[in-house]
Amino acid sequence: MPVLEMIRTYPADITLDRDLMADAVSVLIDCAQACTACADACLSEPDVALLGKCIRTNLDCADICATTAKVLSRHTGYDANMSVAQLRSCAVACKTCADECAVHADRHAHCRVCAEACRTCAATCENIMDAMITS
Amino acid sequence: MPVLEMIRTYPADITLDRDLMADAVSVLIDCAQACTACADACLSEPDVALLGKCIRTNLDCADICATTAKVLSRHTGYDANMSVAQLRSCAVACKTCADECAVHADRHAHCRVCAEACRTCAATCENIMDAMITS
Amino acid sequence: MPVLEMIRTYPADITLDRDLMADAVSVLIDCAQACTACADACLSEPDVALLGKCIRTNLDCADICATTAKVLSRHTGYDANMSVAQLRSCAVACKTCADECAVHADRHAHCRVCAEACRTCAATCENIMDAMITS
Amino acid sequence: MPVLEMIRTYPADITLDRDLMADAVSVLIDCAQACTACADACLSEPDVALLGKCIRTNLDCADICATTAKVLSRHTGYDANMSVAQLRSCAVACKTCADECAVHADRHAHCRVCAEACRTCAATCENIMDAMITS
Repeated sequence: MPVLEMIRTYPADITLDRDLMADAVSVLIDCAQACTACADACLSEPDVALLGKCIRTNLDCADICATTAKVLSRHTGYDANMSVAQLRSCAVACKTCADECAVHADRHAHCRVCAEACRTCAATCENIMDAMITS
Repeated sequence: MPVLEMIRTYPADITLDRDLMADAVSVLIDCAQACTACADACLSEPDVALLGKCIRTNLDCADICATTAKVLSRHTGYDANMSVAQLRSCAVACKTCADECAVHADRHAHCRVCAEACRTCAATCENIMDAMITS
Repeated sequence: MPVLEMIRTYPADITLDRDLMADAVSVLIDCAQACTACADACLSEPDVALLGKCIRTNLDCADICATTAKVLSRHTGYDANMSVAQLRSCAVACKTCADECAVHADRHAHCRVCAEACRTCAATCENIMDAMITS
Repeated sequence: MPVLEMIRTYPADITLDRDLMADAVSVLIDCAQACTACADACLSEPDVALLGKCIRTNLDCADICATTAKVLSRHTGYDANMSVAQLRSCAVACKTCADECAVHADRHAHCRVCAEACRTCAATCENIMDAMITS
């Protein structure tokens, strides 16, 4: 569990619970990877011509999740406003990508797995946002 | 002007004006680079101990601008909702980074240049958001 | 294990063993996260003025590992030459970052954890490179 | 010219010529953007089924160029070994992407523009590598 080990060795205060934050970062980096892999798997499907929107949404969602994971991996000079705005964008991207992948989930197992990863990640982002707003 | 050349050769419709979009992408990738360079320049300042928040904000802003530039560089399967949410986060990040760099602008020329790049980028993001919402 | 699930649903041939590749991608994204977190933890240390090189090396290593993870997450149109060159750069970055973090490992637990993650990642990169060259 | 302004305000020594470095960073971020845009343009082409390898190579090259631009944007704690290894990988990626895009340049203007950007970027990487090795 390198994410958890790293956050436990952070030498100053963190506003939010460390285990909660470590879990969120893990979910985000896994979702980023799933979206990168799903975009690539789509490129090798015989019906790739029908998957243009799915590939594009996967690529956006991968970039947005990776960036959000980096924002949540930093605790120095924490600014709730900036973190919440990025989490909000990430929740939108994950829901949009989950919906788009769900359209193809019956035909493509990678879209089914990716839709689940995006659904989990959207819920995680909203959970952390709530914790940030109320802390 | 490679950004402009690339968008002019996009083979399908784009909802927004191509010159406006190319300009926004250029502003975003320049701002991402300025924030990466400002974080690094801060690391070489004798008063680096006072620049922790500035470096962290620069790193977040660099990641967020780079991701937003990629989102705006894609036109296939355009989803206004996702693009607007990311632009909104980017505008917040750029304003926050501009304010933080402005604190150090008198002592550090790189913070002054970076604050200007962030201010320009925040305005550009809001401009594109408005165009997306009203289109 | 989302990385493993995603690679198992890739719909075409993969030259290398899928479990080996999934493990490598996991190690790479964990190392990228560790380096991002270590750079940030260094910013909150009282002796940050001595950690400039460590922070910079962490930031480079984070970017290089994240990019290498994305390259290894794609299998469509595989080009061994490109993948091996990026893995070689990643192995150099991880060894350099492990050495730099090791200098501070006695004083900073995050540098110790990060050095271990980098050491593991360097070995993983060399292992995959060998598998690619001999396949 | 924000790249040039930023490097001119870096407060410590830089081993290589600042104008040369600024030019290289500009070429790298433009190439990354061109590859991102070319991958997306390919997704909207009627013959997308023939462009799988081109899209994948574009995505890899975009990630590798963006990472290389960040490495060259940092000067604190410079390590020639690490920078040269990443530049070497970037030169390979750019040449590979230029060759792949050139295959489609007659039919797709975005592949022609992107091939040129990649060719320029490969030459720039080799030029900087030479300067680093001999300095």
